[in-house]
Amino acid sequence: MAETIKVGVYGASGYAGQDLVEILAQHPNVELVFATSNTYKGDPVPGTDLRYIPSEAADLSQLDAVFLALPHTASAPVAALAVSKGVKVVDLSADLRLNTPEAYEQWYHHTHPNPELLPVPYGLPEINRAHIQGANVVAAPGCYPTTTLLGLYPLLKADVLVEGSPIIVDAKSGVSGAGRDPKPNTHFVEVFGNLSPYNPGRSHRHVGEIEQEIHKLNDHVGTLIFTPHLLPLDRGLMASIYVTLKPDFSSKAAQSLYEEMYDGEPLVKVLPPKQQATLKHVVRTNTGAISLTPVTDQYLHVTSVTDNLRKGASGQAVQCFNLMFALPETTALL
Amino acid sequence: MAETIKVGVYGASGYAGQDLVEILAQHPNVELVFATSNTYKGDPVPGTDLRYIPSEAADLSQLDAVFLALPHTASAPVAALAVSKGVKVVDLSADLRLNTPEAYEQWYHHTHPNPELLPVPYGLPEINRAHIQGANVVAAPGCYPTTTLLGLYPLLKADVLVEGSPIIVDAKSGVSGAGRDPKPNTHFVEVFGNLSPYNPGRSHRHVGEIEQEIHKLNDHVGTLIFTPHLLPLDRGLMASIYVTLKPDFSSKAAQSLYEEMYDGEPLVKVLPPKQQATLKHVVRTNTGAISLTPVTDQYLHVTSVTDNLRKGASGQAVQCFNLMFALPETTALL
Amino acid sequence: MAETIKVGVYGASGYAGQDLVEILAQHPNVELVFATSNTYKGDPVPGTDLRYIPSEAADLSQLDAVFLALPHTASAPVAALAVSKGVKVVDLSADLRLNTPEAYEQWYHHTHPNPELLPVPYGLPEINRAHIQGANVVAAPGCYPTTTLLGLYPLLKADVLVEGSPIIVDAKSGVSGAGRDPKPNTHFVEVFGNLSPYNPGRSHRHVGEIEQEIHKLNDHVGTLIFTPHLLPLDRGLMASIYVTLKPDFSSKAAQSLYEEMYDGEPLVKVLPPKQQATLKHVVRTNTGAISLTPVTDQYLHVTSVTDNLRKGASGQAVQCFNLMFALPETTALL
Amino acid sequence: MAETIKVGVYGASGYAGQDLVEILAQHPNVELVFATSNTYKGDPVPGTDLRYIPSEAADLSQLDAVFLALPHTASAPVAALAVSKGVKVVDLSADLRLNTPEAYEQWYHHTHPNPELLPVPYGLPEINRAHIQGANVVAAPGCYPTTTLLGLYPLLKADVLVEGSPIIVDAKSGVSGAGRDPKPNTHFVEVFGNLSPYNPGRSHRHVGEIEQEIHKLNDHVGTLIFTPHLLPLDRGLMASIYVTLKPDFSSKAAQSLYEEMYDGEPLVKVLPPKQQATLKHVVRTNTGAISLTPVTDQYLHVTSVTDNLRKGASGQAVQCFNLMFALPETTALL
Repeated sequence: MAETIKVGVYGASGYAGQDLVEILAQHPNVELVFATSNTYKGDPVPGTDLRYIPSEAADLSQLDAVFLALPHTASAPVAALAVSKGVKVVDLSADLRLNTPEAYEQWYHHTHPNPELLPVPYGLPEINRAHIQGANVVAAPGCYPTTTLLGLYPLLKADVLVEGSPIIVDAKSGVSGAGRDPKPNTHFVEVFGNLSPYNPGRSHRHVGEIEQEIHKLNDHVGTLIFTPHLLPLDRGLMASIYVTLKPDFSSKAAQSLYEEMYDGEPLVKVLPPKQQATLKHVVRTNTGAISLTPVTDQYLHVTSVTDNLRKGASGQAVQCFNLMFALPETTALL
Repeated sequence: MAETIKVGVYGASGYAGQDLVEILAQHPNVELVFATSNTYKGDPVPGTDLRYIPSEAADLSQLDAVFLALPHTASAPVAALAVSKGVKVVDLSADLRLNTPEAYEQWYHHTHPNPELLPVPYGLPEINRAHIQGANVVAAPGCYPTTTLLGLYPLLKADVLVEGSPIIVDAKSGVSGAGRDPKPNTHFVEVFGNLSPYNPGRSHRHVGEIEQEIHKLNDHVGTLIFTPHLLPLDRGLMASIYVTLKPDFSSKAAQSLYEEMYDGEPLVKVLPPKQQATLKHVVRTNTGAISLTPVTDQYLHVTSVTDNLRKGASGQAVQCFNLMFALPETTALL
Repeated sequence: MAETIKVGVYGASGYAGQDLVEILAQHPNVELVFATSNTYKGDPVPGTDLRYIPSEAADLSQLDAVFLALPHTASAPVAALAVSKGVKVVDLSADLRLNTPEAYEQWYHHTHPNPELLPVPYGLPEINRAHIQGANVVAAPGCYPTTTLLGLYPLLKADVLVEGSPIIVDAKSGVSGAGRDPKPNTHFVEVFGNLSPYNPGRSHRHVGEIEQEIHKLNDHVGTLIFTPHLLPLDRGLMASIYVTLKPDFSSKAAQSLYEEMYDGEPLVKVLPPKQQATLKHVVRTNTGAISLTPVTDQYLHVTSVTDNLRKGASGQAVQCFNLMFALPETTALL
Repeated sequence: MAETIKVGVYGASGYAGQDLVEILAQHPNVELVFATSNTYKGDPVPGTDLRYIPSEAADLSQLDAVFLALPHTASAPVAALAVSKGVKVVDLSADLRLNTPEAYEQWYHHTHPNPELLPVPYGLPEINRAHIQGANVVAAPGCYPTTTLLGLYPLLKADVLVEGSPIIVDAKSGVSGAGRDPKPNTHFVEVFGNLSPYNPGRSHRHVGEIEQEIHKLNDHVGTLIFTPHLLPLDRGLMASIYVTLKPDFSSKAAQSLYEEMYDGEPLVKVLPPKQQATLKHVVRTNTGAISLTPVTDQYLHVTSVTDNLRKGASGQAVQCFNLMFALPETTALL
């Protein structure tokens, strides 16, 4: 009775890939056929009976769907191949998130490997559900865009921000967001007891993608000022958002605006007034949480949190997958 | 030849008090006469030959100067007594920082215990050195005001912020800032792996004090939006500041403005362009560090960091003390 | 068809109590009727629709079973009351673990509040399953005894330790093991970056209980030397065990001894040779893991790990509960 | 009057090298001439006016002494060259610690690069001061041997351990001990919230060196059982030592034995009875601390702690240097 969907995962040994496999292993409609990892090929895939295989040994033709947790530029060619074989694609990389090859080249400083695939639906279900349902290819956004956009969405949709006023996002991420490859900035000794801004201002590559989606919702807003910071913890992401409201919309009205806008959303929780969203609200869950602080009538502070590997990566990818296959949206996610 | 100044410390077993004793124990001009702690009375005072005595056993009359690292409301009466005996006072509590009893009552919801003492010089030497030199009583500011004001000072002084535009400060502090008394929010398990906003918007008590000092420097600026966060580390404080510049001042000019304004300041370091200030720059030192990011021409992002127990408390108190006694300002601090 | 067992939890807001509620909320055969907390009464119980009630408002007569996550001396009287009403009891406190009131008094320096209850089966299923099945009252052991005894069991059972030789257990625990009440030694600043032995030698209260169970399995072994340490992390417990083997049993044979003894045990995993058990193997799971290092022929080093709140507390309590009600032993635990 | 000694440091950007430069920069008798780093060449050397130079640009002939914080096999050839130029050598690598090329080959699986240099004095001043004073080449031991040998020394010297009884050392180290090169096992996400044994039993390379020194002091003792663990913190090392005493020496006598043996040692502190040595006692200091627990009459538990980068590396190297140049032993170390 229950449909079984044959699924493969590329890049399954990275941190997002590991969480993705963990979720898929418990998904009642999924049969995980293979999981690739060039670095750990031959090792057991935790929570399954599989062993990692190298990418080149993966056979797309057995699949109904494939998840790509690969680095950018490596992902798009596999997506193109999957599409050509009629396999549905959930891409967790940045390759398909920007809608034009020009935008991709601007932010990633590479020619897009497969411009013929663009554009594809942006895989943030709370904002873009209608285009994800039944789609063949979806670009699941990562942790910074997801957390930021969920925190801004009701304001953008209701068009209550002062035209041209900046949107300030002071963001903080756990170290798993930097990937599993050992690098100087992820060495334990460098991170422990420290807090570091990086790629500040408008230099982080996700600025392009966040602005693209902001402008689809609202083209009057001003500059996005976005500063990520590296936190001394493994997982969790907080976007602290500061905005200026139009005179006819008081910050006190934000609470009910958010509650209405996210009413019925199973994977976004708006906290009651006075409570503050913390990482503990979301770590190891597939949900986001949002809290609102009316600073003055015209200034609003929004705290939006996710688990960067879950709602900010793997959980959201499975949420998209569920929509693409017309399964209940929260299957394996609650 | 070297003058010896007899000094006592009240509240010496708290986290700021411990660092203060550590600094004073190495100060060539200081003889530490006593250190009080009601909780740990009788225990050895680390780094000295003393044992903690209870406050009531302390004899102010033997002293040339006293440091008060006591809770607010407990500190002012001791300060008043010291003043009456001709003992110089460096107060690390909040009791003497606000200039009027009315302001104190507004932010601390208590009648001021000793309004006759107000106002006293605000003990931030980089901004207020002239009034601290030779003073008899100084109110040394704590970590949030110090770090925020150092980050804003050149902009306020040069009057380059758009009139009425908000000053946004997203601040993050290590747990020692919450004091040594065990409380639910400082329990290891609650803090570990977490990041939490608290007292957001304009509800933190230090907002009053920060705005008081901002307005002395510049009375055109807009609302202070101030959100502190608790970081999962022991010491260090970061103020992430976002401001809007007047059209005739480009963010690119900020670097040289800060370098000039802090030129010759031994305890504030302006980092070179492109470098970002992190907690590791300052933890366990008595210096602050500042980095500047020109986001666009009109938007500037400033990162200001201190060790909350050092430049944000004990180190600064000793810096004030040195000025009050006409000693070289950095004695025992570098 | 599925039996529903009405269950209450006393002490539900402590760290073990929280995990217990989390497990029970997903247990298909359990209806959670109430959860008590005197400190947090009135607050919502996470993961349920309940609110904490104070102990005195709890009505045992509605229950089929009760879990007691109370401090010692507070637990036994509630257990006695439950027994009198025909309610099955899983006691997570120390009150019922020692078999005689004399032993209790020796280790806890209190007269036992309800000596008439003693002895009850010791709730470590891998060692004592037959006595737990169908029992009315079970004393579930805590983290140190569980982790230590699982690491020693095959050696004791097979009687391969040199008679009279000491058993050395160097143990390390996460901070949640110290409970949720804020205390100086659980303050974040005291624990962060530190490692501390405490209650060394034979002074920890769990020594009595561990030796009691050791001697039931083998009365030839020598002194238990047991040193716990506080680790700077939230959850996880490691017992590093050093033993001397009889001449006719080589350390190289330990691997197969353990594999056979734990063959078929769903909640204890013996790692393959050369792999070392780490906290990451077990944290947030209800299983234990064990690794074996043959140091020389006669000396064996065993590393045994659990999540102190799961297999070391709440998970094990539910495992006992499942056995007491003849449910599949791992229900809600895998 | 004050002698100035010209000094160079090879491998100055590693974690031990950084601390070494920090100490030397404050050493009143030292002029730091160069600091090498092939990875960071050209970058400023913190706390100095120098920039890192590559090894091949370093000119030994300008020096009176050289510190080698290089990997093993890279260090000995530089030492040989320095010796040939009459430059004194403090080697922090493992190259010169084992007394014979055979032992080196056994533990490091390499032919010794410069067997003509062996043997040199083992640079643990508390045990071997007489041979270090005035020496031209010294092999400074690392963190595990230093901490273990300081914890055992009085017992070995007084010959109170049961002949042939094993010496059990359960050791725990902060991550800086694994070096600054990013590796999978030093990635923040792998270490955070974890505790891992590694190289257990007798497989760690320092076992050879520890046993060599043990046997110089006492050749009756039994097997060394040594298990290192990786702690989730940056610096600090604890050796938990378990030994069996001869019938005529009670564990209660250990306290006075240690106090006498270390009486007058400025860099080793024996804690009073009942106090336990923790990492906080020593981190960021050049001293070791030891606490003693008489478990029973015949079993003693010793906790020995150091900062792995200080008394376990750089601080000890400077202590040796001071002895080699007949300077006060604690210069720049207290």
